[in-house]
Amino acid sequence: MYSLNETHDPKLTSWVESANEAMSDFPIQNLPFAVFRRHGSNEPFRGGVAIGTQILDLVAAGGQLNGLDPAVAEAASQERLNRLMALGPAAWSALRMVLSQALRSGSATRDRLRGCLVTQAEAEYRVPARIGDFTDFYTSIHHATNVGRLFRPENPLLPNYQWLPIGYHGRCSSIGVSGQRFHRPLGQLKPPDMAEPVLGPSRRVDYELELGLYVGPGNEPGERIALDDAEAHVFGISLLNDWSARDIQAWEYQPLGPFLAKSFATTVSPWIVTLEALTPYRVAWSRPEEHPRPLHYLDSTANRQAGAFDITLEVLLQTASMQSAQVAPQRVSLGNFHHAFWTVAQMVTHHTVNGCNLQPGDLLATGTQSGPNETEMGALIELTQGGKRPIRLANGEHRTFLEDGDSVVIRGWCEREGRPRIGFGEVVGTLLPARD
Amino acid sequence: MYSLNETHDPKLTSWVESANEAMSDFPIQNLPFAVFRRHGSNEPFRGGVAIGTQILDLVAAGGQLNGLDPAVAEAASQERLNRLMALGPAAWSALRMVLSQALRSGSATRDRLRGCLVTQAEAEYRVPARIGDFTDFYTSIHHATNVGRLFRPENPLLPNYQWLPIGYHGRCSSIGVSGQRFHRPLGQLKPPDMAEPVLGPSRRVDYELELGLYVGPGNEPGERIALDDAEAHVFGISLLNDWSARDIQAWEYQPLGPFLAKSFATTVSPWIVTLEALTPYRVAWSRPEEHPRPLHYLDSTANRQAGAFDITLEVLLQTASMQSAQVAPQRVSLGNFHHAFWTVAQMVTHHTVNGCNLQPGDLLATGTQSGPNETEMGALIELTQGGKRPIRLANGEHRTFLEDGDSVVIRGWCEREGRPRIGFGEVVGTLLPARD
Repeated sequence: MYSLNETHDPKLTSWVESANEAMSDFPIQNLPFAVFRRHGSNEPFRGGVAIGTQILDLVAAGGQLNGLDPAVAEAASQERLNRLMALGPAAWSALRMVLSQALRSGSATRDRLRGCLVTQAEAEYRVPARIGDFTDFYTSIHHATNVGRLFRPENPLLPNYQWLPIGYHGRCSSIGVSGQRFHRPLGQLKPPDMAEPVLGPSRRVDYELELGLYVGPGNEPGERIALDDAEAHVFGISLLNDWSARDIQAWEYQPLGPFLAKSFATTVSPWIVTLEALTPYRVAWSRPEEHPRPLHYLDSTANRQAGAFDITLEVLLQTASMQSAQVAPQRVSLGNFHHAFWTVAQMVTHHTVNGCNLQPGDLLATGTQSGPNETEMGALIELTQGGKRPIRLANGEHRTFLEDGDSVVIRGWCEREGRPRIGFGEVVGTLLPARD
Repeated sequence: MYSLNETHDPKLTSWVESANEAMSDFPIQNLPFAVFRRHGSNEPFRGGVAIGTQILDLVAAGGQLNGLDPAVAEAASQERLNRLMALGPAAWSALRMVLSQALRSGSATRDRLRGCLVTQAEAEYRVPARIGDFTDFYTSIHHATNVGRLFRPENPLLPNYQWLPIGYHGRCSSIGVSGQRFHRPLGQLKPPDMAEPVLGPSRRVDYELELGLYVGPGNEPGERIALDDAEAHVFGISLLNDWSARDIQAWEYQPLGPFLAKSFATTVSPWIVTLEALTPYRVAWSRPEEHPRPLHYLDSTANRQAGAFDITLEVLLQTASMQSAQVAPQRVSLGNFHHAFWTVAQMVTHHTVNGCNLQPGDLLATGTQSGPNETEMGALIELTQGGKRPIRLANGEHRTFLEDGDSVVIRGWCEREGRPRIGFGEVVGTLLPARD
């Protein structure tokens, strides 16, 4: 949908010096959006753009940005980004160009914009959209196969998997922004050796490494979104951790799917990276020969040629004792979104094929992203083979599933030769002890 | 939770004469809430109370109602009822008493309130709450067994069914109010005799007879709602039709549950009957001996003694040719909510046992309500044994599943010797032809 333009020029630098550091997630080629305010203040939440270690406050900067459409300025001043999302790709792209020009080295507006920067370390964030509906897909065939093998050893990958992007509805009320802390959920547990279930704290709390897509303009009820139009309905991508209680899930999920195993907490990263910023990291989408070609409505040349994204995804774990000892989070997996069996566009198109209406700010998650190798698995249930093979941490601790006080960090970034890396920041969440 | 009080006095009559007719759904003992405006007008939507064939406009009446709490008046003047729902049982009960006193025969405010009535036939409605999350349960063991037999002949009722109220998340964006008209959904279909799926219009569009519960005050994340407190979190009950495409469902639903088979449309009735109005129709909740007693958190004396509701539920069908010939909708089933295997309180308590936060205006549906007899089945898939035994209508037409132009009407009411009947009004929806 997008082509490379001057905002992607790898030689561009910013007058915000921290944006020019090699390992920054937020060089001037990125420009992701969030909703923020100064930590602990009573300021209203409002839109901001990440640049290096700073946030450009879109409300404060509004009047200083040459060429900024007043409708965009208004949309960015809201306490959620739904209105900005509703404006669509032309408006997003124009805004990105204005921001790129204003923040690049040599910009005439530098001195006026300096006072519109807030340091990220001093900011607090919120979920960036009012999420009307949250849909979770299941786009990693490696995850589906690994988990399917544990839940249904005789039948790990169901026949429909190769034909349609499996998805289900998730819970909106318990979606929190990075930093979310939640109690270990209680639920009905029925281990195989017990005749009856008991109520108790889950013993198999897990994370799930996912990406979240925020819907831009929606569709009317009854209207389908064609595959080659689908990405025009996606504002951008963030990181997402779909916490899961595997023991609750195993007992409750048939026949209508996961419910309380997931609804206690879902954590999203504050920053949304636009599809335009991701243009240089598009890759071909293809499938091994053994899988069927998708039905016509899920297949197009554009989707095959460049429907996938090369996004590296990292999961890190920090136990309570690591935190006490000030030991940094330790990597437990490193994967990539390009392994996904279904693309962003296919998710959107399939979601609307029945006439279901999407709305600005709806959240579509990709499902756990696992790769073909053991080091690429996006959940503990896969890394530990259902809890049978604990992972060993550098400090000598072991984990099968999460323990009280564990924090999970997910990071994501894109790299390509000759370009500054762009990143998604991170999403962190912490499991607190059960309340009862 | 509620006990009988003077608003339940069966001898009360209203100065709105139509409320005193024997077959009215809306005698003064009912007083359900909706959001309405005059049909085709540009008036703001606002809260109203049904009385006979009229609606008392709560904005217009606000200043005339003696003893009305200003916070309640403000809440009722919103374009959705979320704020009124958030106020809780004491506020709802006080409002009900004010309305009962104002509308009863001999009320001193009669002359002033007469100008605050709008005829229901001249009104249009909207979905009465901003629904943050929609959860659909599966509380009829008869439905679960009937449908389970069709989808899994070898294993109709799964072992978890008797232990927990199975539920899953539904789609909020496509919930419409009575009168909703929607196109036959397209989707992937894979009949057993085909090797690969095809995209096409669903051939097995069905209705589902359900009730919807609107959540009142919510709970904080991580907080559970105890069984005996659960009903204080329910504002009231309406009718709900959870349209379902059975062929799409059969192919897509494993392993994560129904998705596009349901998300194209869900229709709710405009009127919400409060739990207080339903007090005289409470009945004991019990289970046949062969089923286990629920776990402690789902069991209480109050729930056993009076946790169920005696609500008669009727489904009627009006085909396009019946409509052309001005033939009234024809009854196809008559059931009762007291057959439900799980109660309203058990749904709320189970939903929050993991710490999931409910919010005012959330919608919890009961799942299809079927009874033990053939005439009590709440969906065509059951009435026609999966499409194998068509039902014959009085005009000679037959149906297995819905045909284009069919309208489905659901009605509900409560009757008890010595009391005026109270009703839920109706929910109507119409299936239009597929768009492609």
